[in-house]
Amino acid sequence: MKKNLIVGQSGGPTAVINCSLYGVVSEGERQENVDKVYGMVNGIEGFLKGNYLDFAAMDSKEKLLYTPGAFLGSCRYKLPEDFADPVYPEIFKKLEEMNIGYFCYIGGNDSMDTVSKLSRYASSVKSDIRFIGVPKTVDNDLVMTDHTPGFGSAARYVAQTVREITRDASVYDKEAVTIVEIMGRHAGWLTAAGMLARQQGDRNPYLIYLPEVAFDVERFIRQIQEAMKECKALVVCVSEGIRDQDGTFICEYDSEAAVDNFGHKMLTGCGKYLERLVQNRLGVKVRSVELNVSQRCSAALMSKADQKEAVEAGMFGVKAAVSGETGKMAAFSRKGSAPYEMECTLQDVNLICNQEKTVPKEWIIRDGSDVSQDFMEYALPLIQGRIDLPEDEFGLADFVRR
Amino acid sequence: MKKNLIVGQSGGPTAVINCSLYGVVSEGERQENVDKVYGMVNGIEGFLKGNYLDFAAMDSKEKLLYTPGAFLGSCRYKLPEDFADPVYPEIFKKLEEMNIGYFCYIGGNDSMDTVSKLSRYASSVKSDIRFIGVPKTVDNDLVMTDHTPGFGSAARYVAQTVREITRDASVYDKEAVTIVEIMGRHAGWLTAAGMLARQQGDRNPYLIYLPEVAFDVERFIRQIQEAMKECKALVVCVSEGIRDQDGTFICEYDSEAAVDNFGHKMLTGCGKYLERLVQNRLGVKVRSVELNVSQRCSAALMSKADQKEAVEAGMFGVKAAVSGETGKMAAFSRKGSAPYEMECTLQDVNLICNQEKTVPKEWIIRDGSDVSQDFMEYALPLIQGRIDLPEDEFGLADFVRR
Repeated sequence: MKKNLIVGQSGGPTAVINCSLYGVVSEGERQENVDKVYGMVNGIEGFLKGNYLDFAAMDSKEKLLYTPGAFLGSCRYKLPEDFADPVYPEIFKKLEEMNIGYFCYIGGNDSMDTVSKLSRYASSVKSDIRFIGVPKTVDNDLVMTDHTPGFGSAARYVAQTVREITRDASVYDKEAVTIVEIMGRHAGWLTAAGMLARQQGDRNPYLIYLPEVAFDVERFIRQIQEAMKECKALVVCVSEGIRDQDGTFICEYDSEAAVDNFGHKMLTGCGKYLERLVQNRLGVKVRSVELNVSQRCSAALMSKADQKEAVEAGMFGVKAAVSGETGKMAAFSRKGSAPYEMECTLQDVNLICNQEKTVPKEWIIRDGSDVSQDFMEYALPLIQGRIDLPEDEFGLADFVRR
Repeated sequence: MKKNLIVGQSGGPTAVINCSLYGVVSEGERQENVDKVYGMVNGIEGFLKGNYLDFAAMDSKEKLLYTPGAFLGSCRYKLPEDFADPVYPEIFKKLEEMNIGYFCYIGGNDSMDTVSKLSRYASSVKSDIRFIGVPKTVDNDLVMTDHTPGFGSAARYVAQTVREITRDASVYDKEAVTIVEIMGRHAGWLTAAGMLARQQGDRNPYLIYLPEVAFDVERFIRQIQEAMKECKALVVCVSEGIRDQDGTFICEYDSEAAVDNFGHKMLTGCGKYLERLVQNRLGVKVRSVELNVSQRCSAALMSKADQKEAVEAGMFGVKAAVSGETGKMAAFSRKGSAPYEMECTLQDVNLICNQEKTVPKEWIIRDGSDVSQDFMEYALPLIQGRIDLPEDEFGLADFVRR
């Protein structure tokens, strides 16, 4: 008997979260056991308010393949721990009314928590609705998968942009430090991608700091002084999440001192703090650059490899649901790096949610100021390939909107 | 009699300043009257220290066509007003020793000042060395030219990136304001390019503020409130140079209050200030994004039209010098916008330097919060076309370094 499929997106967007959506929708439409394909608008939170759409009515679905943001809209909504909460029967009543047999949720850590809870609740009430997670996060911090869709594109953005910034920073015949602040509050995967910016014969960006190693201000200043002996226009990559030995975020260092005109503590990024620190301590010209949301929404620098895998993860998730799986996440298993070979696998979503995968300590070298070749081997295949962005009448990327 | 040509780059880099360099060098090598083509390293300042190179020794010059930054290095060096200063005979002695007949200087306002002074000094000492300026600046603020090389690529970057940010900002079902801070201290050309981000049927980014019109905080808050009635996830573009009726930069509003841990005034951008202002006044979620140096160094979003014209300006400058012109700048004259047609002309560099072209007041509409269709007609031809970035073994743009 045919059942309907519903898909949602949750958490922060990535450049390729809509590619996974495309994978889910196109595979759903292809499967004989799937009747209609619905989309929750604004995730499970919107679904609870009755917001959804029918993909049969959507034109030009292929535009999803290069549209950043979350086409369906997203939410940050945590289901209660207590299965006695009335929200659970409410959700399942709605799902049954819509004759849903397959539920795919595209997201990160918190979204996998939703999949975990719904699949466990389903089992407790003997519902046969199948719940499958499709991973996404630029942070690359999900366990039990080699990497996550979204990371490759963000890493390509970081690598190419830091390379461009390095050219820009090197034009004057003056000592100068450029500090690039990169996303990743707990895991340094994306900041590590700064190393890929290095060109043959050039070690700039010289210094790279991840949150996995305690940040020491004095060591940082020493390392900058050392590096400036070799390189006049130094480029430094720092993770937004670097913190000291006591666990205090470096970006919090200023917040005691600085109060804005509204009487509130001024929270700036660690890049801005370090900019002032280096300026004060070394008296050189310093600029900080926060790469900001473009890391997760640059279509122009999307990685083709990432785009392809994001679609595959979505398709694989649907196939798994249709074949009877539930409470699982579509994951990636690497068969080799040279040549790169990847295989989709299923992992228990209960073992994934609320865990965090950080950069291996042994990949962090030079007294916490650089990343080893292991990272390069790991990351290079994921950032390969450029996509051709179809353009609208203005000559800019022609994105799709809901 | 054959003479040598020397070329320099000066001021802040752009995405295509090396395209103009390519134009100068390739045309110089093509001209029968030109013997050697030299490059000053770090502009006139480096030249005075004896730093230059011979382009005959350079491989893969075509990489200049997509390498951001200034290949030759740049400087910020203002020649003295007084022609009796010993630096003038010093420069001319060096030029004569190198048998220079043609001097091309690629830069903005200040660089045209250098061309103006050197050509006037040459005339006063009856030197027949010819001095020609080749324009560049992302700010697009040079007079007597329709636009400047560098602006089209920066505008393409702004338009495409703001469009991506608008997708990213629209994922949650919550009132939110995203403030994008765009380069341009005195002229709003680049900020105006935010309007090109609008897609068919979407007015977001809703509000655009240029430095040409006095910024009023209360009016700004009212306009945000009005716009939020129509659009939940508001995107606002502001120029870094917006200032109030008294000429005070908005980015200076906080500097009295905020002192960092080093006891120094904290200067943040106007985006950060407005972020806190809107948060405090309207209680909505606000994020500010400073586009920063990528506006002037993104190779990935270089405009093909800009690239082509930057090369042409360089070639035209050399042809002008060889044909006997001096004290002139290669400029653009627009013959039409639809279809777009542009012609190189020569303009008197003395009328260009130290002037500033701002966005016409009549193009700024809706009580200083938007830009008219006139700007779109003007700017659209300049941002057209994507370039194919040749990649190195890491799959990233293969830039050339000195």
